[in-house]
Amino acid sequence: MSAMAFVSITPLGDGESVSCYVSRAVKVIKESGLEWQLTPMGTIIEGDRLEDVLAVINKASEILEECNRLSISIKIDYRRDRAGGLDKKVKSVLEKL
Amino acid sequence: MSAMAFVSITPLGDGESVSCYVSRAVKVIKESGLEWQLTPMGTIIEGDRLEDVLAVINKASEILEECNRLSISIKIDYRRDRAGGLDKKVKSVLEKL
Amino acid sequence: MSAMAFVSITPLGDGESVSCYVSRAVKVIKESGLEWQLTPMGTIIEGDRLEDVLAVINKASEILEECNRLSISIKIDYRRDRAGGLDKKVKSVLEKL
Amino acid sequence: MSAMAFVSITPLGDGESVSCYVSRAVKVIKESGLEWQLTPMGTIIEGDRLEDVLAVINKASEILEECNRLSISIKIDYRRDRAGGLDKKVKSVLEKL
Repeated sequence: MSAMAFVSITPLGDGESVSCYVSRAVKVIKESGLEWQLTPMGTIIEGDRLEDVLAVINKASEILEECNRLSISIKIDYRRDRAGGLDKKVKSVLEKL
Repeated sequence: MSAMAFVSITPLGDGESVSCYVSRAVKVIKESGLEWQLTPMGTIIEGDRLEDVLAVINKASEILEECNRLSISIKIDYRRDRAGGLDKKVKSVLEKL
Repeated sequence: MSAMAFVSITPLGDGESVSCYVSRAVKVIKESGLEWQLTPMGTIIEGDRLEDVLAVINKASEILEECNRLSISIKIDYRRDRAGGLDKKVKSVLEKL
Repeated sequence: MSAMAFVSITPLGDGESVSCYVSRAVKVIKESGLEWQLTPMGTIIEGDRLEDVLAVINKASEILEECNRLSISIKIDYRRDRAGGLDKKVKSVLEKL
């Protein structure tokens, strides 16, 4: 099983530059123990169970408690029939380029 | 507090037409007790707590247990400083058109 | 052919309440001549060609020229083998609920 | 100016494994001349103009002409007041971790 999520958490109304908030959310993801990878447009997280990945996203959002409004974008690739691996997916595309 | 989510759950590898799967996921949302609205591109759910909305999305995904691969797209507008209301947001834009 | 898009255009750094900006973007969509439907989480647009739908989204974003930073979320269901219809998709799910 | 997009193009109805289609779409992105980065959940593209980035996404989708149905997810960070840089955004978050 593999639940792989691309997630982006952005405060609205707390200024144009949001990297100080984003880094606090990423810290929660980093400390969750799940596989993770930072990209310029969001963070990719992978866990065996969808529930665990959603719980980390919830916690990463709730850490920004002083932000009145958050825009959270999530895209999940949930595969029940196999284990994942952040590198494997990139490799399988690169090989065919 | 208001956590409003647009969610789309799509099986990959189970054919081009997916409405029979989508309706089973929507049924879970409908029976969750949260506010919901079906749109041509996904379902909108609203709850007071982000955690509750994510739990319903998890359940709606897990109901499709025979689908090996699911693509789940979620966009959330999380507002800590006020209650929401599906109609209110549409009204506040329509008034300004 | 049918390119149906869910689109949400949000300025960052222009305050917590963004409905005045959203309504100006929706006005461009409304005047585009394409099928459209406003929802609490974004606007759904439908055209025969993907290129036309993306062009309207581009125009709706560029109208907010005073906004330094925009977050634009787009989800597209692109079907080459049939015409769409905003109502048809909702109906085909509701019937199975 | 910087239009940075995370894009994921997935055929529906063409089987569970889609990497052969994804790599053909990524090839179009790679040959576009724009900055790009492959991630496990999608490809990140950056151009000076939003219109150029959307045109590449359109072309990358149209290359998969035998696919009857495509699900296309796009998240764009559009900044009018500064140049971008794929590495800069990651760096500004990592520094604060």
